[in-house]
Amino acid sequence: VPVVDFWYEFASTYSYPAAMRVEALAGARGIALNWRPFLLGPIFAARGMADSPFNLHAAKGRYMWRDLRRVCDGLGLPLRRPEPFPQNSLLAARVALAIEGDVRPEFSRAVYAAEFGEGQSIAEPSTIVAVIERLGLNSGAILERAASGPIKDALRRETELAGRLGIFGAPNLVTADGEVFWGNDRLEDGLDWAIGGLTGRGA
Amino acid sequence: VPVVDFWYEFASTYSYPAAMRVEALAGARGIALNWRPFLLGPIFAARGMADSPFNLHAAKGRYMWRDLRRVCDGLGLPLRRPEPFPQNSLLAARVALAIEGDVRPEFSRAVYAAEFGEGQSIAEPSTIVAVIERLGLNSGAILERAASGPIKDALRRETELAGRLGIFGAPNLVTADGEVFWGNDRLEDGLDWAIGGLTGRGA
Repeated sequence: VPVVDFWYEFASTYSYPAAMRVEALAGARGIALNWRPFLLGPIFAARGMADSPFNLHAAKGRYMWRDLRRVCDGLGLPLRRPEPFPQNSLLAARVALAIEGDVRPEFSRAVYAAEFGEGQSIAEPSTIVAVIERLGLNSGAILERAASGPIKDALRRETELAGRLGIFGAPNLVTADGEVFWGNDRLEDGLDWAIGGLTGRGA
Repeated sequence: VPVVDFWYEFASTYSYPAAMRVEALAGARGIALNWRPFLLGPIFAARGMADSPFNLHAAKGRYMWRDLRRVCDGLGLPLRRPEPFPQNSLLAARVALAIEGDVRPEFSRAVYAAEFGEGQSIAEPSTIVAVIERLGLNSGAILERAASGPIKDALRRETELAGRLGIFGAPNLVTADGEVFWGNDRLEDGLDWAIGGLTGRGA
């Protein structure tokens, strides 16, 4: 079974529709996904950017929100902008890393649904606790693990690796042969590449 | 017949596959295209950017060239990076505006083929002259018109209008109701929108 890495950032807008779409697209191609949360903040900071490019560049930001609305409408996904934007995603990313197996994608989709579907603040521990408990998990144990040294180190290492892979935005698919496909609009291409063809619309 | 504006910049890499694809996509939907060349330079300069974002941001630039290679391979289009990148596109844009009717798209595609298919310098008048003459046109008369006050003013006005429309990159489709679709990967969505549906893959 081919394995493709799905690199996502909880603060990233286009990671929301991507997280909702990618599992079905991978499954249809017989591909297993490795869900890898990381932080864009340190990658932006290394370039001297202190905020989201969508805030630093007003026209691009206005376009992104309109485009995201069209994308979500097309997928039947609700969209509500969280305040502030971007959300601090550190807690969500640590919790995601603290959750192993198939529950990590479930948790991740639920975080995106709360953040961009309902406009909730994912920087609030209460939001994350509610998501964990709706999944039937023990939030106390998971939050303790998420705050531990090994998980903090793991998130730091993942973020450093993302930078070394050439990642500068989110979401991304990275195939076993090292090809990076950036954006919700490259999911099909990245997955097709992983099974030996790139038969998308060339877009 | 619905009319959609195709805003393109001769120095823009993704405008190359878009220019090669867009006419067939529009025709299949019964849409007429209005080819509108403009300059990104003044739009970037207004934000204090003195170069292409693909040069200012090394990781993004490396990704773009790799992604463009995959896109062009998928479409069967040759790709050769022109030096320097980006090319000064002022002459090509003025000449395109000086050419009316169906010949403007033909000229524009031929410029892209020379620039990104063969790696030629489109800042060189000899390149533009050769393209004009291969189309069977009188290059002397067209270059004279391209250098005239009305054409210079028209390009300035088009570029200003692009900025007012919220355009910050290229290529773009702009529909009659003012929706902007940015990127080679939004051509289908923009054209579908213009005929009353957005049934793309939601990407």
